[in-house]
Amino acid sequence: MQSKALLDAWRQRIDGFLAAQLPPASESPQRLHEAMRYAVLGDGKRLRPLLVYAAAHAVNRASAQQMAALDHAAAAVELIHAYSLVHDDLPAMDDDALRRGRPTVHVAFDEATAILVGDALQSEAFHLLANAPAPAEARVAALAELARASGSRGMCGGQALDMAATGNNQSLEALAHMHRLKTGALIEASLMLGGYLVNADDSALRVLQRIGAELGLGFQIRDDLLDVEADSATLGKTAGKDEAQSKSTYVTLLGLDGARARLAECAQALEAALKQLPGGTNENGQALSDLAAFAIQRAR
Amino acid sequence: MQSKALLDAWRQRIDGFLAAQLPPASESPQRLHEAMRYAVLGDGKRLRPLLVYAAAHAVNRASAQQMAALDHAAAAVELIHAYSLVHDDLPAMDDDALRRGRPTVHVAFDEATAILVGDALQSEAFHLLANAPAPAEARVAALAELARASGSRGMCGGQALDMAATGNNQSLEALAHMHRLKTGALIEASLMLGGYLVNADDSALRVLQRIGAELGLGFQIRDDLLDVEADSATLGKTAGKDEAQSKSTYVTLLGLDGARARLAECAQALEAALKQLPGGTNENGQALSDLAAFAIQRAR
Repeated sequence: MQSKALLDAWRQRIDGFLAAQLPPASESPQRLHEAMRYAVLGDGKRLRPLLVYAAAHAVNRASAQQMAALDHAAAAVELIHAYSLVHDDLPAMDDDALRRGRPTVHVAFDEATAILVGDALQSEAFHLLANAPAPAEARVAALAELARASGSRGMCGGQALDMAATGNNQSLEALAHMHRLKTGALIEASLMLGGYLVNADDSALRVLQRIGAELGLGFQIRDDLLDVEADSATLGKTAGKDEAQSKSTYVTLLGLDGARARLAECAQALEAALKQLPGGTNENGQALSDLAAFAIQRAR
Repeated sequence: MQSKALLDAWRQRIDGFLAAQLPPASESPQRLHEAMRYAVLGDGKRLRPLLVYAAAHAVNRASAQQMAALDHAAAAVELIHAYSLVHDDLPAMDDDALRRGRPTVHVAFDEATAILVGDALQSEAFHLLANAPAPAEARVAALAELARASGSRGMCGGQALDMAATGNNQSLEALAHMHRLKTGALIEASLMLGGYLVNADDSALRVLQRIGAELGLGFQIRDDLLDVEADSATLGKTAGKDEAQSKSTYVTLLGLDGARARLAECAQALEAALKQLPGGTNENGQALSDLAAFAIQRAR
């Protein structure tokens, strides 16, 4: 991965920013703040925050001031993602005990705390984004996009469709729609936020949106493949869940080879789209290209 | 109530706006959207939306354009309030089956849906506010305030403190702190949002904040008195809960007469603060004055 050093630097940067911005565990209510930090500061891939930085760089080399604003956006998308994991793991939802290699929040703390952790992390995401050091117009565009991607027409709606589909035989179209909302919307928003905060023009924003859509799809096909191919220790979460719940996946609907072929198409579409960004063919765009490759080839 | 006609008009206005803005129950995911509408469109007092309109009018007679922006802010605070009720009622939280005179969302639907309803309503609140027809600067200020008031340093933090305090003997100071977060923060935010969207100056914003603090306190003392004085049918929720859970309240800590006396002090402080607003002594400020009186004298 050519941009590994840059991605590692951004990962350290966002981890440090999140640790500094989340209320300290010593601040009342202590248990809630401790659990919020536990939920966020674990061993995550930080894919979404990295997409924020990488999208911005593929459009425009970011100034120091813009990097500071990108920190807020990167933190915001990670907090939305982290809150969704906490709530999805609840007994009434997917009832999962293991996440990122550790007990889930409702297991390590309790169910009421897990509900409040998710709620408060969502608020904190919007709070950080509203306070980004960026022009008010850019912040408002980013806030509107993040809120849309998080709600019933985005991530929450996707989770509702996923819950309703458990045990059913879905069509490929319904499966794709569900994932576009559940996973795709926030991945797309991560790219768009990066674009908004470096003042990307409409043409660049449209390309970012297309990259987001392909990346979201590729990410999910990879996830479905991993659920079959990998073990729980590697994943840091329960493997083989899809089959155990007899859920429709890209693998059950397309077969292993079919899913892999569809993933290869994603990779090609991504490559073509990346070339249409201002920094897509130089070193500035390399991080986004590497991240896209990682998302659809990752081993966990 | 001198401003009854105006308040009734605003109540109809916000009910219509909420019904129009929430995704229709016919839109996928249908069950989630149906439950979101069930949670919001019931028989609420709409105190917080009314405070948005009333605070704006006490500062400045709002233009038609500003009224349209206030609709978005009023809806946003009501959606935050509605989501908090849905989550607070969950079995792992207060485990309540009755709310606004109807089965709670997890009873009428199911627990997973109730969790998602709350999550999606919170996103929708920020989405509506981000899309208010107002200058970006005012929207960002309002978004930052609403997010702060909703999170772990506001409403969610207050609920966490309340959960932790059940069955304990709290000090008056700890009780006041808990309520300032749990109920006060959103009431204060409602007033501030009204101010931001009619471009209130710093001096008016400070007065609105003071009114919010007193109103939040008065509202809660009234709530504690009602829990002792009223029955479930009148309240539309379970009465006598505080005593059943041996919770500290303003009544247990100050006695009935003491709580009533503290409420009278609130009323005086509110009257004094209202006079310091531009519209506080004319008909424009009357609605805020009437709402304050209602909040601390209400029978449910």
